[in-house]
Amino acid sequence: MWTRRFGNWNHGIIAASVCVLSLCVGSLQAIALQSKLLTRSGGSTTTKDIPISYQTLYIDQKIDHFGFLEDGTFKQRYLLSDTYWHRPGGPILFYTGNEGDIAWFCNNTGFMWEAAKELGAMLIFAEHRYYGESMPFGEASYSDSKHLNFLTSEQALADFAVLIKNVKSTLPGAQRSPVIAIGGSYGGMLSAWFRMKYPNIVVGALAASAPIWQFPGMVPCGAFYKTVTEDFAKSGYNCEVNIRKSWSSINNISSTASGLEWLTKEFSLCDSLKNKDVTSFKNWLQETWVNLAMVDYPYEANFLQPLPPWPIQVVCKYLTMDAKASDKLLLRGVSQAVKVYYNYTGGSSCLNISQTATGNLGIVGWFYQACTEMVMPMCSDGVNDMFEPEDWNFQAFSDECNSLFGVRPRSEWAEVVYGGKDISAHSNIIFSNGGLDPWSAGGVTHNISESLVSIVIPDGAHHLDLRYSSEHDPPTVRAARALEIKYFKEWIRQAKKAHRPHSNSRL
Amino acid sequence: MWTRRFGNWNHGIIAASVCVLSLCVGSLQAIALQSKLLTRSGGSTTTKDIPISYQTLYIDQKIDHFGFLEDGTFKQRYLLSDTYWHRPGGPILFYTGNEGDIAWFCNNTGFMWEAAKELGAMLIFAEHRYYGESMPFGEASYSDSKHLNFLTSEQALADFAVLIKNVKSTLPGAQRSPVIAIGGSYGGMLSAWFRMKYPNIVVGALAASAPIWQFPGMVPCGAFYKTVTEDFAKSGYNCEVNIRKSWSSINNISSTASGLEWLTKEFSLCDSLKNKDVTSFKNWLQETWVNLAMVDYPYEANFLQPLPPWPIQVVCKYLTMDAKASDKLLLRGVSQAVKVYYNYTGGSSCLNISQTATGNLGIVGWFYQACTEMVMPMCSDGVNDMFEPEDWNFQAFSDECNSLFGVRPRSEWAEVVYGGKDISAHSNIIFSNGGLDPWSAGGVTHNISESLVSIVIPDGAHHLDLRYSSEHDPPTVRAARALEIKYFKEWIRQAKKAHRPHSNSRL
Repeated sequence: MWTRRFGNWNHGIIAASVCVLSLCVGSLQAIALQSKLLTRSGGSTTTKDIPISYQTLYIDQKIDHFGFLEDGTFKQRYLLSDTYWHRPGGPILFYTGNEGDIAWFCNNTGFMWEAAKELGAMLIFAEHRYYGESMPFGEASYSDSKHLNFLTSEQALADFAVLIKNVKSTLPGAQRSPVIAIGGSYGGMLSAWFRMKYPNIVVGALAASAPIWQFPGMVPCGAFYKTVTEDFAKSGYNCEVNIRKSWSSINNISSTASGLEWLTKEFSLCDSLKNKDVTSFKNWLQETWVNLAMVDYPYEANFLQPLPPWPIQVVCKYLTMDAKASDKLLLRGVSQAVKVYYNYTGGSSCLNISQTATGNLGIVGWFYQACTEMVMPMCSDGVNDMFEPEDWNFQAFSDECNSLFGVRPRSEWAEVVYGGKDISAHSNIIFSNGGLDPWSAGGVTHNISESLVSIVIPDGAHHLDLRYSSEHDPPTVRAARALEIKYFKEWIRQAKKAHRPHSNSRL
Repeated sequence: MWTRRFGNWNHGIIAASVCVLSLCVGSLQAIALQSKLLTRSGGSTTTKDIPISYQTLYIDQKIDHFGFLEDGTFKQRYLLSDTYWHRPGGPILFYTGNEGDIAWFCNNTGFMWEAAKELGAMLIFAEHRYYGESMPFGEASYSDSKHLNFLTSEQALADFAVLIKNVKSTLPGAQRSPVIAIGGSYGGMLSAWFRMKYPNIVVGALAASAPIWQFPGMVPCGAFYKTVTEDFAKSGYNCEVNIRKSWSSINNISSTASGLEWLTKEFSLCDSLKNKDVTSFKNWLQETWVNLAMVDYPYEANFLQPLPPWPIQVVCKYLTMDAKASDKLLLRGVSQAVKVYYNYTGGSSCLNISQTATGNLGIVGWFYQACTEMVMPMCSDGVNDMFEPEDWNFQAFSDECNSLFGVRPRSEWAEVVYGGKDISAHSNIIFSNGGLDPWSAGGVTHNISESLVSIVIPDGAHHLDLRYSSEHDPPTVRAARALEIKYFKEWIRQAKKAHRPHSNSRL
């Protein structure tokens, strides 16, 4: 999950004051990443026995679950692994796919593979419509707002419900299998919402790093960048101070042609920096810091980019200069710092400011979602955070959406349909959050009831708990995973009890 | 609520084997009925102190809550009464309007007016989109399947949620008012589903005579007509036996031209009965018996038609002939019986077999709903019920829908989206059913959990509990209403407790 400004995606439209969240990992990049990910860096020892092996399957889904005029169907992809499944009746762990290629999520959610072994569970990873291969209108899916009209979280949840009903009614031994929803980031939001809206379909949900409260009026818009800043503040001397200073240094240096040339060289940019690109350049840096906060994992990993253990600490080693440092000295440090992110493996000959970790198809889908339902206000003030001040401007955002997609966001809809902060009537949801993860600011970080529980992993970044276990894991994430498994077992026990004797059947 | 065959509505298309449920009371008839209803027959004594007085208000609603291409709005009508409201914070009783003019429901739901007085509650009656005045596209709303595309229960629930959010945020004193959903028939289904899907919006629901299980695979398709038959069997000697025999008597008599003429005269039909109309004639009689079962109230009332107390008993007095009775003698009894229903007040000069109690605009909307989401299988066998045998034929039904509206029903969707028989994860819903009401066969008539409770009123017809109290009320309905109020108070107490101290607010 990361932030992204429209300006970086569509160079024709720079919206300096509008910041859009993206939780997107698009399909093209995901496919490219896949082969790397299968080797799994990180020094994991406990997972070598867990081979990833699944069938790739497809189900016909209605393009529109909520209207009957459009009666067409499309093929939704899902991955199914029954390697560890105890049939009949063994549980099903169901990944509620988010905005990207489902194989990528499958390979990046090692926790589910380990949990499957422990629980005798079947695994299903369901691809979210409009991502990966699951295109409602094939290549035309993104062609215009008419074709994009069925890209909503409600439609995705309905897909998941139909898929599970189908699997349970057709796969021998699955009829009475309790199903647990699991997801991270936007996928975690979907998991939580899935349990809220379809408690007949899933007995519980693990919503990892799911900012279900990052919506208007629920949390302060500045909380996200404040958390990013805190991560840098505690990772090295003067680190966040120097990043805060860097924006004016960039303004100073970029004010002359020779300064722009210097920046181009110093940052090894692929394209010469022009005056008109300075905002994009700063946005790109800001996204880089945010991404680092999300993937500040304790071991070498390759989630958004290949990175060393605790990458912010490595980055901050280049940002220790004191207050007297010149603009150029400071920016040289920044340049070295960002190269930790973009060139850890030494394979990049130059850096491209239109790419942070995505820059692929999937992000357009997330932009559309942000421009419709997923309205997540963000702001910075430069005081409580290390970024340039920027207000949340809904009107500008809405205008931008209208010009891009011909749709306008509905800022209050998510709260109406998903309950906002008043979710206490629901049950059996774990909200896990990492203390280092900026998305935790919009997450549920306190227990709401006995069965709506929060697990905070103080030294965890973005859904660390969903990753493979590693010998370098902090004890807090080990404890979190153990507790999650404990809740899974309890939900499974409840479900089996409810089914024995077979109740409520009148036929 | 009543059954209706397509054939009666659209004489160009006779689908003898297809039976469609209608819970419909259309707007034109409703408006005509309104003035009569305001006088309220029934000898009520306790309600004379409860004047019906409300404001008629309108809210702008999105035509499509689940897609962003159609961004237009329409005016949804709602009625608001604050006569008894204890502000600030007094509860809100919210009627989830069903398929008809909301003023008609408002005037026929006296229980809410009495409960408002007792609870210090505000009353809101929300009109269902596509009924009454709440037309998304004005006069074009019913013009084709494109305009009808937004007529779904999910859209209606979203309208209700948006309306309540709006009232609570704009009406001084309502911000912390707990809201209870109340509805009868299809409106009762909406109440139950509203609590299931939006428990953040309503603290509980009274779903009166709500056949939420009258969907494929949940209850036997013959249960409905079996209940109708039982009502007649216990209301008079030989009553159901003679109705069962009447179909073959009609077949015999209608086989000759003179027989058709005799039937026309005997039944005082407005139009001469033709051979091609015999199926419609029998359907009309069948609907009449069903409607009588629905409105078999203990006092003189005017719900679908003006009727005497316990109308089935009155009807059955004409149907006591023994096995030796001739076809004509039997049918003379049937004729006198149906005239109890159609001409109790003596005002009808002739009977129209294309009308039972509706025959107005609203029924088209309900047909469309039955042809899309509300797929409610019905069948009869002539053995366990008193009707001619008729199987449930989904394919024929689907073809009929396709020819009428250009849409096809999705028989499994209601179960997916509303949980089918597995609703135990929800809470705070009362399912009330009348033992005489054929719709109780598809209702929830046993407790599912401590807070999903069933109230059965053995001698109650269709949502008797929602009507004004009357001195003629059987003790069972008095007890039911008292228990409903007790649950309301408990839900209100829970809600107030949850709000004190104000929890979960982080802003």
